[in-house]
This record gives sequence, C-alpha cells and structure tokens, in this order.
Amino acid sequence: MTYTLVLMRHGESQWNVENKFTGWVDVPLTEKGIAEATEAGQNLAASGYEFDCAFTSFQKRAIKTCFITLEATDSLFVPVQKSWKLNERMYGNLQGMNKGESVETYGADKVLIWRRSFDVPPPNMEDPNHPYNPAKERKYASIPKEELPTTECLKDCIERVVPYWENDIVPAIKSGKRVLIAAHGNSLRGLVKYLDDISEDDILKLNIPTGVALVYTLDENMKPITAEGQPYAPLKGSYLGDVADIQGRINGVANQTAKK
Amino acid sequence: MTYTLVLMRHGESQWNVENKFTGWVDVPLTEKGIAEATEAGQNLAASGYEFDCAFTSFQKRAIKTCFITLEATDSLFVPVQKSWKLNERMYGNLQGMNKGESVETYGADKVLIWRRSFDVPPPNMEDPNHPYNPAKERKYASIPKEELPTTECLKDCIERVVPYWENDIVPAIKSGKRVLIAAHGNSLRGLVKYLDDISEDDILKLNIPTGVALVYTLDENMKPITAEGQPYAPLKGSYLGDVADIQGRINGVANQTAKK
Repeated sequence: MTYTLVLMRHGESQWNVENKFTGWVDVPLTEKGIAEATEAGQNLAASGYEFDCAFTSFQKRAIKTCFITLEATDSLFVPVQKSWKLNERMYGNLQGMNKGESVETYGADKVLIWRRSFDVPPPNMEDPNHPYNPAKERKYASIPKEELPTTECLKDCIERVVPYWENDIVPAIKSGKRVLIAAHGNSLRGLVKYLDDISEDDILKLNIPTGVALVYTLDENMKPITAEGQPYAPLKGSYLGDVADIQGRINGVANQTAKK
Repeated sequence: MTYTLVLMRHGESQWNVENKFTGWVDVPLTEKGIAEATEAGQNLAASGYEFDCAFTSFQKRAIKTCFITLEATDSLFVPVQKSWKLNERMYGNLQGMNKGESVETYGADKVLIWRRSFDVPPPNMEDPNHPYNPAKERKYASIPKEELPTTECLKDCIERVVPYWENDIVPAIKSGKRVLIAAHGNSLRGLVKYLDDISEDDILKLNIPTGVALVYTLDENMKPITAEGQPYAPLKGSYLGDVADIQGRINGVANQTAKK
C-alpha cells in the first residue's frame, strides 16, 4: 500500500516583486503568481491527479493557490483545512522591510546570518503597534498568545510544521485520502527536511520552485519512496513537469535569493 | 443579542446562458457570473462586512462565489463547510435538457407544473449511465445511495436544507460567528421560506437575484428582525445595495424564468 501526496508552493506574491521580507504579512499573489498556480493545476489535471482533501495556511497567497489547484483538478468540493502551522516562517522585526533597509538598520553580516542560518532568528517583533504585527490581525485572535511566534528561525518553523503534519495530515493520508498541501517556501522546506531526512546544511541550500507540484509516494509508514531516476536529490519526491524547465525555476529561486 | 447572517446566490452559470435545466450538473460560472460575485463581495467589504465562517454547496458555481466573497471581505482564512444539502434543487431527468427539448419530450403542461408547483417533482433520473446522473460523480460517492435524490420538487429541496440549517449553521451563528451562506436559487428559497415563514404560493413567486448579498438580522431564537423600511416583503432580510438596481435584478430573474 502506497500513498500519493502533492506539495505546492504558492506563486509569486506582491512583495516578492518589491523585494521585501514578507513572512506572515498577508500580501496577495501577483497576476504572474495566479498564472503560475493555474499552470501547476493544469499540469496536475493533465496527469490525472485529483484530490480528496487539502491543507493550507492562514495566508491568502497559499489559500488562493490551493483554490486554483483544486479548481483545475475538479476537486473544489473537498474539505480544506487552514492552519497557521503551515504559514511562512515568521520573519520578526524584518517583516515589511525591503532587503536594503534591513542591511542599513542591522548591518549586512547580521542580515546574512538571519537569512542563511538554521537556528538564529531575526529580532523579535515586539511593538504591538507595528503595522505588520500579526497579533493585531483577527485571524490570529483565537490563538493563545504564548503560541504565536514573534520571530522564527527555520528550526522554529519546522518545529510547528512537523507536529501539524503528524497530528492532522498523516491521519488523512492513512485513511486513503489523496492530499494536497499548498503552503510556503519555508514551511514546505520544513516538511521535506523531515520527510526526506535532509541535513541542516542541505535544507538551507534547497530551493523549492513556485508553481510546480512536488509529488511524493509514501509507504505505509509515511516514508517517501524515491522516484526512479528522479534528479532532485536530496529530495525523494519528484517535481511534475519537464526536468530542464524545473531546473531553470529552481535556479531562478536560488539566484533571486542570492541577489537579495 | 442579535446576529448577522449573509446569504448569497451564485452568479450566472454557463447553462443559464444556454437555457438548460442545470440542477445538480456542475457547470462553472461565466465571466459575467464571476464579475457579479466580485461586485457583491466588494459591496459587502465597502459596508464593513467580514466573516468568521462560511457554508456552501458541493457545486463549483457556489463554491467559487463563496471564495470570491471571502476574498473581497478579507476573510479567506475562515473555515468553509461544503455540503450537498445546500445544492441546487435536483431536477431529475430534465437535467441537461434545454427548455425547448423538455417541452418536446414531455409536453408544455407537464413542464409548467414541474417548474411552478411546490410539490410535484420532475421524472426521476433512473438511468445509471445518464451523462448527468450525480450517482456517477465521485463527490457523491460517500453519501448513502438512499439519501441521494434522483429528483426533487421545491418541497423536497427545503426538507434537506432546513435540517442542515438547524444542525450545522445555527450552532455556528449562536456561537457568535458571522456566517456567509453561498448557495443556489432554490436552496436559498428553501431557507428564506423557513426563516421568514413564507407561504408555498408566495415562495414560488419569490426570485432571489444573483450577485447581491441578502442580509438578515436574527434574534436569539434565530427569528429574523424586519429591517426598518425595507421594501422586500415577504422577506424580512434586506438586500445590500441600491433599491432600484436590486428591483431591476429581481425583475430580470422573474422575466428570465417567465421566458423559459
């Protein structure tokens, strides 16, 4: 008995374009981002994928990507569970700054460490009146204040994603449901680090492209089975689509990050 | 203590344009239908509405209307419960026929009765291979066969909508949640007949326009409080927007029905 799982990173958002630290700020997809999600959904549909349930974050760029993917695969009627546990990494006080501002404020060395280390979080967002403090948003009002992060390193992000995977998503998969997870660059990094047992160093170098379905086959213990001949190590899952095209998208994400 | 409830009928679908009996056939919104839903959502947002949860049917034209409305009111993160109990009236063997075909096959008198009576259902859809038999669709696979209608009169439709209202929607409202229901002409007729205690004769004459929010204020016993000066009797709820514009839309729906 094996199970199929599809992961999808949301398409381009407005602040990708503006080169700002986004994190939990709820910016919308751009037209390009909508087109990316639509194409990914159509590719899934063309390969015969359909879904029985979906999981996504509390952030509109992932929720809309989820909707578009379900619409393309004629799966709109399925239950969708939304949780902040699948949110993007919370970027603390950097949220809303563009990359240049952050270097001016904190210095290039520190910003580099916050961006590239596994376990050093950026400064806390402590100002309750900060325009991008999630504690002000009604969507987080029902979450106990001590659970709501004020900053996160990648390690922190993983530590909320994995329990959600175990407690909410795994039971759905084991009950035979074909699951879609539409989420964010870092929450998906967290999940694939755990699934594929990727090292801390390697996960920092791993760039998941937007608008491409990452398809896993899982055994009965939820361990990924490496797709034969797939060129995406250390991932055991496989991207759906043309290898050269996807490699180009992965390099695009890597270059974008290097530039910033 | 009062509660606010918003009902929304989905916008124009492809088969409205083609003048076919739609019922449970899962046809998409047209571009015009998407624009109608978008406008209705923007009107709600401009009046300060937001939602804490939403209910919709198993049919994509209502699910998309629900998504568009939540998106416009910055409420995408809220839970959405989908149920076939909010589906359009199941139109039996007429599903997929255009209005002319149905008259040729069954005669004008019978078709008129099926369209205008409260409790005479059209012929059952009995052919398991009928292209529009919902029993073939995976979305209905988990529903016990004896519960799945093969045809419905308006009375039958109401008899599934009201228990769903009582068991699933009322508890959400009573817990203080601001609820959106995005559904269909006849499932919403069923709901407002029950809420506003409208007679069988009057409910058949009542046309709910597409793409307009119908807003109710409910008392603690879930009884609607008539909005002062509202001109939509026998409804106790009130449409959001300009009265003359809405009256025009209501007449538009009535004329469309008369023509068919």
